[in-house]
Amino acid sequence: MENLLTTSELTVVEIQQILQDAQNFANGAEWKPNKQSFVANLFFEPSTRTKCSFEVAERKLGLEVIPFETTSSSVVKGETLYDTVRTLESIGVNAVVVRHKEDNYFNELVGKVNIPVINAGDGCGNHPTQSLLDLLTIKQEFNKFAGLKISIIGDIRHSRVARSNADALTRLGAEVVFSGPKEWFDENVLNDANYEDIDTAIETSDVVMLLRIQHERHGENDVEMTKEDYHKQYGLTVDREKRMKKSSIIMHPAPVNRDVEIADELVECERSRIFKQMQNGVYIRMSVLKRSLTTIEGGNLHVNDYKKWPIAY
Amino acid sequence: MENLLTTSELTVVEIQQILQDAQNFANGAEWKPNKQSFVANLFFEPSTRTKCSFEVAERKLGLEVIPFETTSSSVVKGETLYDTVRTLESIGVNAVVVRHKEDNYFNELVGKVNIPVINAGDGCGNHPTQSLLDLLTIKQEFNKFAGLKISIIGDIRHSRVARSNADALTRLGAEVVFSGPKEWFDENVLNDANYEDIDTAIETSDVVMLLRIQHERHGENDVEMTKEDYHKQYGLTVDREKRMKKSSIIMHPAPVNRDVEIADELVECERSRIFKQMQNGVYIRMSVLKRSLTTIEGGNLHVNDYKKWPIAY
Amino acid sequence: MENLLTTSELTVVEIQQILQDAQNFANGAEWKPNKQSFVANLFFEPSTRTKCSFEVAERKLGLEVIPFETTSSSVVKGETLYDTVRTLESIGVNAVVVRHKEDNYFNELVGKVNIPVINAGDGCGNHPTQSLLDLLTIKQEFNKFAGLKISIIGDIRHSRVARSNADALTRLGAEVVFSGPKEWFDENVLNDANYEDIDTAIETSDVVMLLRIQHERHGENDVEMTKEDYHKQYGLTVDREKRMKKSSIIMHPAPVNRDVEIADELVECERSRIFKQMQNGVYIRMSVLKRSLTTIEGGNLHVNDYKKWPIAY
Repeated sequence: MENLLTTSELTVVEIQQILQDAQNFANGAEWKPNKQSFVANLFFEPSTRTKCSFEVAERKLGLEVIPFETTSSSVVKGETLYDTVRTLESIGVNAVVVRHKEDNYFNELVGKVNIPVINAGDGCGNHPTQSLLDLLTIKQEFNKFAGLKISIIGDIRHSRVARSNADALTRLGAEVVFSGPKEWFDENVLNDANYEDIDTAIETSDVVMLLRIQHERHGENDVEMTKEDYHKQYGLTVDREKRMKKSSIIMHPAPVNRDVEIADELVECERSRIFKQMQNGVYIRMSVLKRSLTTIEGGNLHVNDYKKWPIAY
Repeated sequence: MENLLTTSELTVVEIQQILQDAQNFANGAEWKPNKQSFVANLFFEPSTRTKCSFEVAERKLGLEVIPFETTSSSVVKGETLYDTVRTLESIGVNAVVVRHKEDNYFNELVGKVNIPVINAGDGCGNHPTQSLLDLLTIKQEFNKFAGLKISIIGDIRHSRVARSNADALTRLGAEVVFSGPKEWFDENVLNDANYEDIDTAIETSDVVMLLRIQHERHGENDVEMTKEDYHKQYGLTVDREKRMKKSSIIMHPAPVNRDVEIADELVECERSRIFKQMQNGVYIRMSVLKRSLTTIEGGNLHVNDYKKWPIAY
Repeated sequence: MENLLTTSELTVVEIQQILQDAQNFANGAEWKPNKQSFVANLFFEPSTRTKCSFEVAERKLGLEVIPFETTSSSVVKGETLYDTVRTLESIGVNAVVVRHKEDNYFNELVGKVNIPVINAGDGCGNHPTQSLLDLLTIKQEFNKFAGLKISIIGDIRHSRVARSNADALTRLGAEVVFSGPKEWFDENVLNDANYEDIDTAIETSDVVMLLRIQHERHGENDVEMTKEDYHKQYGLTVDREKRMKKSSIIMHPAPVNRDVEIADELVECERSRIFKQMQNGVYIRMSVLKRSLTTIEGGNLHVNDYKKWPIAY
């Protein structure tokens, strides 16, 4: 029973194993649990791509997906997340995928429930399947992490993936720099001395990873600027794209604010991997679900199954 | 990859082919795509029968239906319809069924996304699967269109099906007349000289097709009358039904406002095909989905498959 | 076509048959209808456990579950429950599961629609699958009903299960007593002379069945007390649990108000069957769905199928 809560808890070997398994799925590998298995997606915050991506991944693995509508559930009667998950466990659900607005909501569950929890985003905290799909997209492009320079640009403070991506990429051997409005940064980030001005970052990186401005997470006292100003100062403009390194790529977790983080006409340009990232999301989620459900079943069979697939680092 | 956006874009031959395929499904024919296929139903407006009808049709074809809740999706973060559909395409969805409150919303998609769009209703514009199920119901009854007289009665201006039904029925050889409150009509309709008073229309038609009063689409300045007045002046009363032609039938797209468009006790009377229309809706949607998914797959097989089924005009 | 509306309409033999079939499912028996079958869950009130439990049961029987969102359906356009269910019937749905806030909502349907209705809770009225899962949990524990003493404690007036459980248990041979705040009781209950004070009830019963305080059903004029007061006066405190009979058990329909009806640390104690009840809910619903769908199909096969399974009373 393997949870997936944060990328920082994963070793480099575990990350590579998840990526390899995802790549196998991308190449057409199939895997299904050996008995009818149930999963519930508990999304307490709006989401299209993550929820639908998990749904497609679940169906491709032949799982039964139990609809769980947070707005019409007993949560509105005040039921705790723990009681909700224990209920689902009791009725036969084999794994839960949870998105929740509270940071580290999963501390209420871990070690107490007997089914794996897959974190699909907690507050401003973590979003491990997003991080992993970013890593897969980079690996597919460069077949390595060591020696790459990756710039993460934008709304770092409210991003679930900025810090976990930086952590994982660094452990995998890449160099990570941050850019964007300094007012939006933690002191931690700034003190790290890995802040770069936007033009240097874009011109020298192999991967330009733009972050969505999380308007919905900004408080009233936040420094605000117009969309046009943001785009001009910190966005990937048509002009800046021309100065990117040869064979460097553009990434964005989406949904994109067109003409804010990135110029409208660049969203689907040749360098853009934005829709490729979404496609990879399905394979990463298949890999992560397989990992969680494999160990449930006692798993000798499926551990062997991992071994049968060549693992390349 | 065959979209279905409006009936007016369909040739008479295409209409007949869709009807024939639907009738084959009604007769027990089966068809499934040759690999796991995904469809998403994007309903940005409330609907029971259309959405559930598509769901049943999709399951009968063995499709995987990806739940898409418009109220909890990224659309609430301001994502465009184009970006939403491209996202679904990226994660492996093979076709989208869309209902949207804007007329011709599909212009934003057509030629830009690479998966078929099936229109399940746009604003006050089109509702092609509703039109097609109406046609199937008429064909089952009379086995022809030529020579039939069909009266379409009621809220023409706000109806998605009135004009497209009139267009298709005329092309198929039927005579179409309109009736109802003149204030609710376009000048186009009135100038067509095919307006008839309610009693003549009902007494001389083979098909009396009543339209739902779309209270929810009426603006504040609309001419309003009481339900009782509407029923008396323009509704199918018990008395008017007695004066209908022998073997003529009653149709209504539902949901019915009982005792407004039609007397409560007539909704399930012998002449009524209202619930038959709903039943036919499933077969039409199976036919339309098959048509969209067939061409995706390159389709020699399935084109042959069409040929194997006798097509009767 | 066997409806399930209330437990009081079921004979003792029918109850025992449903319990036996459920126990067979608990023991690993499998049953699937012999053709693709569709079911729709119409929940007009919030629910996690009942809705998800039905969903799991339905998937285990291989049924196709048609999503029906009450908030986005034509019900918001004013469609009646009858027209909604007739619509679902017309498009091929084979059974409906309904939860509705009105007592006896099903009177609008019974004898008029041609598909079975399974009541998942009506107003303050009935909740037969909850009653049946309670019975199954008791039967698993004691393998009999005769001679058992069961106390039902708490918010009797707003409980869907209190009266129907009392009725069924009495018919099955058990003794039932009530306890809790007298202000919350019907005169019927009090006059029955089966009211006991909380401490006597808890110390002398084989089954202590606590009811959820239905805050959401209490009106403004209800007698209110603090949670702490309720717990102290009428709750299962840690201290009261110590005075329970040897081998007696604790039940609660959930969701639990922790530290109100029952002390937090007792929810998952050794005597507690609260999560067991949820687990049994799936088997009961499988049994009830099988019963409804069996008779639809004409059913000689499935009637035999019942006979093939030994029925123990």
